[in-house]
Amino acid sequence: MGIEIERKFLLHHDAWNKLVKPVGKSLRQGYILNDPAKTIRVRIAETKAWLTIKGITLGASRLEYEYEIPLEEAKELLDNFSEGELDKIRYEIDYQGKTWEVDVFSGDNDGLIVAEIELLSEDEDFECPEWIGVEVTGDKRYYNASLTTYPFKDWTA
Amino acid sequence: MGIEIERKFLLHHDAWNKLVKPVGKSLRQGYILNDPAKTIRVRIAETKAWLTIKGITLGASRLEYEYEIPLEEAKELLDNFSEGELDKIRYEIDYQGKTWEVDVFSGDNDGLIVAEIELLSEDEDFECPEWIGVEVTGDKRYYNASLTTYPFKDWTA
Repeated sequence: MGIEIERKFLLHHDAWNKLVKPVGKSLRQGYILNDPAKTIRVRIAETKAWLTIKGITLGASRLEYEYEIPLEEAKELLDNFSEGELDKIRYEIDYQGKTWEVDVFSGDNDGLIVAEIELLSEDEDFECPEWIGVEVTGDKRYYNASLTTYPFKDWTA
Repeated sequence: MGIEIERKFLLHHDAWNKLVKPVGKSLRQGYILNDPAKTIRVRIAETKAWLTIKGITLGASRLEYEYEIPLEEAKELLDNFSEGELDKIRYEIDYQGKTWEVDVFSGDNDGLIVAEIELLSEDEDFECPEWIGVEVTGDKRYYNASLTTYPFKDWTA
């Protein structure tokens, strides 16, 4: 169990593109349950996979339960039970003692880049690197679960 | 992963009550997702717990994925995410080389007793003990997921 507290930001793409980055990790994920009150996600990160249950977001916090599952079963769960999928490359960037997770989306969410920082409390202070832009914590359109049903490509269409 | 193939029967209660039974196991379970196409169940059996994802039933078969999870997390998942719960005592009875699982329900399903036998194929032959009554495989009212929302006490009300 855990309470997940995180804040989410858009990026200044020019500054991000100029950054020398570590190697990213390819993530494939889908939702077995995609409901405002709870989500059940299956995520594959290369050779490992997880099943994650998350509660409703209150402020920047939500309940989260995560279980590692066999890779082959994760593929079957996505194939049989998921209603939409996301693909993205995740970069982990250390900055001033904290780790930023930057997701570069592809497919129907191509062009979207989002950075998240996990905090120990909702009022924890942290420094933003120069490539961090406007905050979008709490904006439901940026929820990964929403991006499977209302992807970035449709936002300005 | 597995394909679960099982058949379900009601019991002759008199014959069942006369049977000398092994000690039963107390089960508490609820559904995080309860939908005709898929269910996600949390089950606590005394000191152990599991998260189980099942697909739609076709004949006597369905896809099933089961993961053991920590007991405390199972309790939190039931408290936070389940919309209805079932309590029952499960007896495992060996008969002619097969194991029957007999569930004696309590609470809103008090009075209901159901026996299940897991098979290797849909046409596998097996012997029924004398306390086995009419078959109810495929009758949706007897699905455990249904019994949380439409319990036995309401059937004849």
